Amino acid sequence: MKVPVVENVLKLNDEIARLNRRAFQEAEVFVVDLIGSPGCGKTALLEATLEHLRGTVEIGVLVGDPATSRDGQRLARRCAHVVQINTGNGCHLDANQIRQAAARLDLNRLDILFIENVGNLICPVSFDLGQHVKVGMFSVSEGDDKAAKHPHLLLVSSLLLLNKMDLLPHVNFDLEHFHQDVRCLNAAVPLLELSVKHGQIEPWLNWLTCQGQLQQGTSRVA
Amino acid sequence: MKVPVVENVLKLNDEIARLNRRAFQEAEVFVVDLIGSPGCGKTALLEATLEHLRGTVEIGVLVGDPATSRDGQRLARRCAHVVQINTGNGCHLDANQIRQAAARLDLNRLDILFIENVGNLICPVSFDLGQHVKVGMFSVSEGDDKAAKHPHLLLVSSLLLLNKMDLLPHVNFDLEHFHQDVRCLNAAVPLLELSVKHGQIEPWLNWLTCQGQLQQGTSRVA
Repeated sequence: MKVPVVENVLKLNDEIARLNRRAFQEAEVFVVDLIGSPGCGKTALLEATLEHLRGTVEIGVLVGDPATSRDGQRLARRCAHVVQINTGNGCHLDANQIRQAAARLDLNRLDILFIENVGNLICPVSFDLGQHVKVGMFSVSEGDDKAAKHPHLLLVSSLLLLNKMDLLPHVNFDLEHFHQDVRCLNAAVPLLELSVKHGQIEPWLNWLTCQGQLQQGTSRVA
Repeated sequence: MKVPVVENVLKLNDEIARLNRRAFQEAEVFVVDLIGSPGCGKTALLEATLEHLRGTVEIGVLVGDPATSRDGQRLARRCAHVVQINTGNGCHLDANQIRQAAARLDLNRLDILFIENVGNLICPVSFDLGQHVKVGMFSVSEGDDKAAKHPHLLLVSSLLLLNKMDLLPHVNFDLEHFHQDVRCLNAAVPLLELSVKHGQIEPWLNWLTCQGQLQQGTSRVA
């Protein structure tokens, strides 16, 4: 009985993800599912993104964590459209959690909706949330082997980010080695190097703006 | 049908964990399940531990990763008793994987068996592997909110490690804040600060030696 039930859970998730996707398309909101380790800098990146795009695009954030509303509170200082999702023992967000959380926002007012997934490089990869793109995020303090160890994330990501470039002099991280692993697993995916702490996120902002335009056609993203 | 099946999976895991525990006790091997984020320094800590305890205790390692045998290869340079477990899309080790991997070692020859769990702060917490203790590992580059965000790990851990203390001057990490969160969630658990990169692991080695003696009574751990 085990396998059919697991299949049903994924099938149900996919059905709800399709409803989410339709709702996002109707509202013309570009949806990014951001996946990375605990502490790779997802929330800090979104804080900086909100600062940079303030007044040009309207942004919403659904943020997942096992416990606390700390990330939600940080983001709410810069954004009026934030919903914190606590997953308890759950190691990823699912489509139904996104459906319920998104219902608390006015999607028609938004240009971009970020889903900051639970800090985890494995399970969030397998769950369609209805997003337009999944973005995989690493940081140099995690070590240069993390792309190779997480091939499924590499395969589903439309973009990879490598954060904390400022820590490069202080950690053992072979940048060439990391790039080689990425190229072996997904030769096409763009890889952007950032230092969120030092405000170096320009490539990410450019990518985001271009993607918004490409996805929506008549996008409101500047 | 869903809930009973999930319960059965956990029940089956617990039954196999009991078998593992009995086997570990009969072999008088002290078993540590090491849980931490990707890149917090688990493998580096075990490398340093193997170096320090070489010739005094016999150590085995079962190491879990979604993909690659890189950690296994690193550890095998310092240890004759290493088994790499690849979990694919699996985000944690389970008791049956441990049972199968442990069968490839001569447990009677070992004093300590480390299980380096898959890099993930959430799912490994819920699965009994038959270990004597679970050890939760953080690093300062992950940010000072990770204890608060992972209360279940705090509750099941017999020891907490905070690694990469050498990076403290280069990251935003409020040590007092972190300690406060730990004390709120688990006032009794010891918290040891380490810098594996700089060889500062003495408190961990002391704890390990004491635990081995306490657990086994007539322990072979020096």
